[in-house]
Amino acid sequence: MTTTTATRRDFLKTATLAAASLPLAGLWPRAARAAEPGRKLGFALVGLGSLSTHQIAPAFQNTQHCRLAGIVTGTPAKAARWQAQYNIPEQNIYNYATMDRLADNPDIDVIYVVTPNALHAEHTLKAARAGKHVLCEKPMEVSSEKCQQMIDACQQAGRQLAIGYRLHFEPNNLECVRLAREKVFGELQMIQAGFGFRMGDPTQWRLRKALAGGGPLMDVGIYALQATRYLTGEEPESVSAVATTTDHVKFAEVEESLVWQLKFPSGVIASCSTTYAFGGMRGYRAYAEHGSFGLDPAYEYDGQQGTRSDGQAIALPHMDQFALEMDDFAQCILNNQPTRVPGQEGLRDIKIMMAIYEAARTGKTVALS
Amino acid sequence: MTTTTATRRDFLKTATLAAASLPLAGLWPRAARAAEPGRKLGFALVGLGSLSTHQIAPAFQNTQHCRLAGIVTGTPAKAARWQAQYNIPEQNIYNYATMDRLADNPDIDVIYVVTPNALHAEHTLKAARAGKHVLCEKPMEVSSEKCQQMIDACQQAGRQLAIGYRLHFEPNNLECVRLAREKVFGELQMIQAGFGFRMGDPTQWRLRKALAGGGPLMDVGIYALQATRYLTGEEPESVSAVATTTDHVKFAEVEESLVWQLKFPSGVIASCSTTYAFGGMRGYRAYAEHGSFGLDPAYEYDGQQGTRSDGQAIALPHMDQFALEMDDFAQCILNNQPTRVPGQEGLRDIKIMMAIYEAARTGKTVALS
Repeated sequence: MTTTTATRRDFLKTATLAAASLPLAGLWPRAARAAEPGRKLGFALVGLGSLSTHQIAPAFQNTQHCRLAGIVTGTPAKAARWQAQYNIPEQNIYNYATMDRLADNPDIDVIYVVTPNALHAEHTLKAARAGKHVLCEKPMEVSSEKCQQMIDACQQAGRQLAIGYRLHFEPNNLECVRLAREKVFGELQMIQAGFGFRMGDPTQWRLRKALAGGGPLMDVGIYALQATRYLTGEEPESVSAVATTTDHVKFAEVEESLVWQLKFPSGVIASCSTTYAFGGMRGYRAYAEHGSFGLDPAYEYDGQQGTRSDGQAIALPHMDQFALEMDDFAQCILNNQPTRVPGQEGLRDIKIMMAIYEAARTGKTVALS
Repeated sequence: MTTTTATRRDFLKTATLAAASLPLAGLWPRAARAAEPGRKLGFALVGLGSLSTHQIAPAFQNTQHCRLAGIVTGTPAKAARWQAQYNIPEQNIYNYATMDRLADNPDIDVIYVVTPNALHAEHTLKAARAGKHVLCEKPMEVSSEKCQQMIDACQQAGRQLAIGYRLHFEPNNLECVRLAREKVFGELQMIQAGFGFRMGDPTQWRLRKALAGGGPLMDVGIYALQATRYLTGEEPESVSAVATTTDHVKFAEVEESLVWQLKFPSGVIASCSTTYAFGGMRGYRAYAEHGSFGLDPAYEYDGQQGTRSDGQAIALPHMDQFALEMDDFAQCILNNQPTRVPGQEGLRDIKIMMAIYEAARTGKTVALS
């Protein structure tokens, strides 16, 4: 087995070349552009849970165009801790009642919404009305209607809206996209993708339907769904699904495990799985006429690695995905260019996931428009 | 990573212990019994295609209780070649018109049916009427009705009928059954299983619906289906499925690729795939509460190997599966004991596969009785 490795410079060089010549250009990181040199956009994080604490806040150190300028939290103790740790000015600290006043704060350019799923629209709308650009964590919201409201609000405010699909910036995933689109192993035929983990804490908001909108599908299955879409470059035309629950106490409101199948216009079929019942399912494999390739793990914050049926490894250097994602959004804003992960991309996933739930509920294949 | 290996003696010892104490006893090889010492049952092979030529005929050398005593073939040149190679007496060579005369031949005890799927009933019925026991290759037939006719015919003749499910005798598969049934990683939650290959020869009888009854599902997908059933020890209660065809010339009569989902009474869901479009999909993985295990490859004539999430390998010694299967059937006959792979087992798979086709055709979940 040989190993494909490259430096960050190599990767960006490749990415730039690819961006100039391939239809998947939209998926590749842009090389840094010299727009308003030295200007870093001020981000305010809304919701200081685990993701903000352990991933996003530290990632600012790895960005070129972003700075952690403010926070919105309902927990005064967190506000004090973050203020001290990140040297956040007093006037850039908000709670959910005061965040409307962001409109008066020119130090904040972007609101990064990291609250529970069913609060994304509320916080995005507030941010848009305050004239801020919005980066919103996935899943975008818990219904298509609320996603559309978010898109409309940002459009009306003349501000950009991006969804936190960090894997669109992850080199190993992009390499798999390249293998698929360049048909390195021939035409794609089938994709198998799954992501899940064993949910330990029964008090998690992710188990409450009102806040999460659904179970593991909304939380981690969305990565498997995304993979099938960025590997094929197509939109699924129909979906079937089966859900199961064995622990009816912990999973009284949302599904415990779910498997679904997508059919794409080219004839590719995808078989996907998600769960809160067990770990270890964390990758995807794409099968083409003359070979296969995939990542395992594929979706984590770090550690992506993969294999190809010709014996080559997929082992591009790991990069801070949150930093890449935020820097890309900052550049889109600074250069007034569209993001590759707009609200429409988030809405598309929500529509498909709602169809998956419908298919599981009715036992019927659901056609997607 | 440590490796679990064992000698054949160890394996049979374990198997014997397990047979005495576990509900899966029926799946374990029986230790040899001293019935009619020295007596080897005479087998006649019906259909001298690739499987008979390259796997079954050579396997007789590895049996203790079986001998290749006769053949039934429609090709005189093959008859001559086999007669010479295996020293088969002239009077034990039949064609499809003369095989009724098997009734007068006490040298033949068992007919092993290795013809195209849609001929299994015809040849099984002829064998049963001639008073012979029947070992029939999988899939049992192309419809439930024909399977039932086979079961009835053998029962009326007072002869045994077994289906060639060789993996019920394969040590690494049996080890996975043990891991599942003994709940080594806790309760089973989900199974992913797939088997396929790229069909090169467009003139294959396997691409003709009238002979094959279906496409890759009937041919190799059945192994994935079997795996979900022997791992869970349950019968699925419902199935959904999606079929796809991209090459409409080669696959004018049968499906090219198919994915299906099974739900079991315990709540376990299985996500399965099969194809004639590409290779490389050849294993299964079972996910339980606290870990996972599986084989890749799982279904081949040789080379099974597997991994467990605790880092142990599954690497029991490879054995001649056809020899194990034939010896077990011979012992069942000699000792007048039921086979672990009876016609009812074959019928069950056919019923499920017909439901899978119905689900793919209608886009609706099909309940299984």
